[in-house]
Amino acid sequence: MNKKPIGIFDSGVGGLTVYKEIREQFPNEDIIYFGDTARVPYGPKSKNNVIKYSIQNARFLIQQGAKIIIVACNTSSSVALPALRELVEVPVIGVIQPGVRSAIKHTINKKIGVIGTEGTIKSEAYQKAIQNLDKSCEVFSAACPMLVPLAEEGWIDHEVTHLIIAEYLSVLLQKKIDTLVLGCTHYPILKSAIKKIVGDNVNLVDSAIEVAKQLEEKIIHRGESQKGSSKFFVSDKTEKFKTIGKSIIGENVSPIQNVKLGESWYLT
Amino acid sequence: MNKKPIGIFDSGVGGLTVYKEIREQFPNEDIIYFGDTARVPYGPKSKNNVIKYSIQNARFLIQQGAKIIIVACNTSSSVALPALRELVEVPVIGVIQPGVRSAIKHTINKKIGVIGTEGTIKSEAYQKAIQNLDKSCEVFSAACPMLVPLAEEGWIDHEVTHLIIAEYLSVLLQKKIDTLVLGCTHYPILKSAIKKIVGDNVNLVDSAIEVAKQLEEKIIHRGESQKGSSKFFVSDKTEKFKTIGKSIIGENVSPIQNVKLGESWYLT
Repeated sequence: MNKKPIGIFDSGVGGLTVYKEIREQFPNEDIIYFGDTARVPYGPKSKNNVIKYSIQNARFLIQQGAKIIIVACNTSSSVALPALRELVEVPVIGVIQPGVRSAIKHTINKKIGVIGTEGTIKSEAYQKAIQNLDKSCEVFSAACPMLVPLAEEGWIDHEVTHLIIAEYLSVLLQKKIDTLVLGCTHYPILKSAIKKIVGDNVNLVDSAIEVAKQLEEKIIHRGESQKGSSKFFVSDKTEKFKTIGKSIIGENVSPIQNVKLGESWYLT
Repeated sequence: MNKKPIGIFDSGVGGLTVYKEIREQFPNEDIIYFGDTARVPYGPKSKNNVIKYSIQNARFLIQQGAKIIIVACNTSSSVALPALRELVEVPVIGVIQPGVRSAIKHTINKKIGVIGTEGTIKSEAYQKAIQNLDKSCEVFSAACPMLVPLAEEGWIDHEVTHLIIAEYLSVLLQKKIDTLVLGCTHYPILKSAIKKIVGDNVNLVDSAIEVAKQLEEKIIHRGESQKGSSKFFVSDKTEKFKTIGKSIIGENVSPIQNVKLGESWYLT
């Protein structure tokens, strides 16, 4: 038994797609979530800064008692996992490996597409991880910098959304991918729009679901029969986190507390 | 005579639209530009954080010798000018007042539209400044969070760009505005797309041009006949700053140096 909470962090609100799956599969666990809304987005930022921010976020969660850290951000998982695993004293789970395993399991023609932020795609983290497990897979990737702002704007089923997704995916679809990894935790928000563009013959891999599965292998359960608590922390204002968050998890995101992270961090 | 440089800062690359006008009008002045690419965008961030970042940016420019600070960022100009003027020992020029004066000069039917980031629009800085100068003006504003990512993606003349602009401007056009303030230094990048949507009967106010005009009233010239130098600093990686920057100013953005700003700042 380990009564400590599960810690989850993301650059902002997107990681709540991961929170939602974990909350559903582990109803009796306590969960703390940190969204780094003061420094969002991580996608276009440099590797060094994303590593620095990720370490600060993980340390904050550990100070809050986390027994395991879920990096619910693909950009951070792409570049910061080695540093995190070296510097942090609890197990760390990223979103890349679970997504990769699921993609390899589902693909039949061995042509896998990956979409993500500029940082994730540039790191080639998915490509390397897929070919590490199965050299016969071909990987086609596309950076989609407009999708996070679209999801945050709430244009879930908008004409513009369909046009943008069609444009980003056109090359991948020409390559006849049969599996597409949603390589950013924001993207499940746009899942039905993406499904419309790719059609029924392409499997969508939602890392959120896969991460929750992998967590089952690593977690030492709280061992309590009553419902676990949820606490949310953000590093900047809470309004958008509340509204978009509610649309993701289907209930109020509460309680939310502000925290300042920087060279050092402090609660406000 | 004052041989010190003019200091300009923005959250990122958008302020180069202001740099460009100042460089053209003041060819003999030295200019230093700081783009806070580690913390971009400012638009969705809280007022307190934008004020903190703005003060750090201005202090950095002053340490580099700036004789005057141009806040080439509407979000920062909307919320941080009073704090900057209190804490900073050189004159500070924002982008709001120059845009407002120009809008009032150009409007005939006294219906002025303002577009900007969430932070700028929420602050109502334009509305207050316009009605302070001319109570008979009606102001209609719209937050346009997708325009900065669009400009940064380089989709200057894309079908999606026209659809998004048309959607954001539809209410303002229904209100029969005859003047539209581009209340974000990124927006002049999309000027021709915006012009296509609003047509020839709406004046576009580009703050960059207006700021350069106001600077003439405040500046003590360098008094040298040879060309002034330009130096650029950014707080995160430089690739995008270089490519988008070049498309804005029409020549290479050089030299660029990295600097870390935080609780304290240091050059790298």
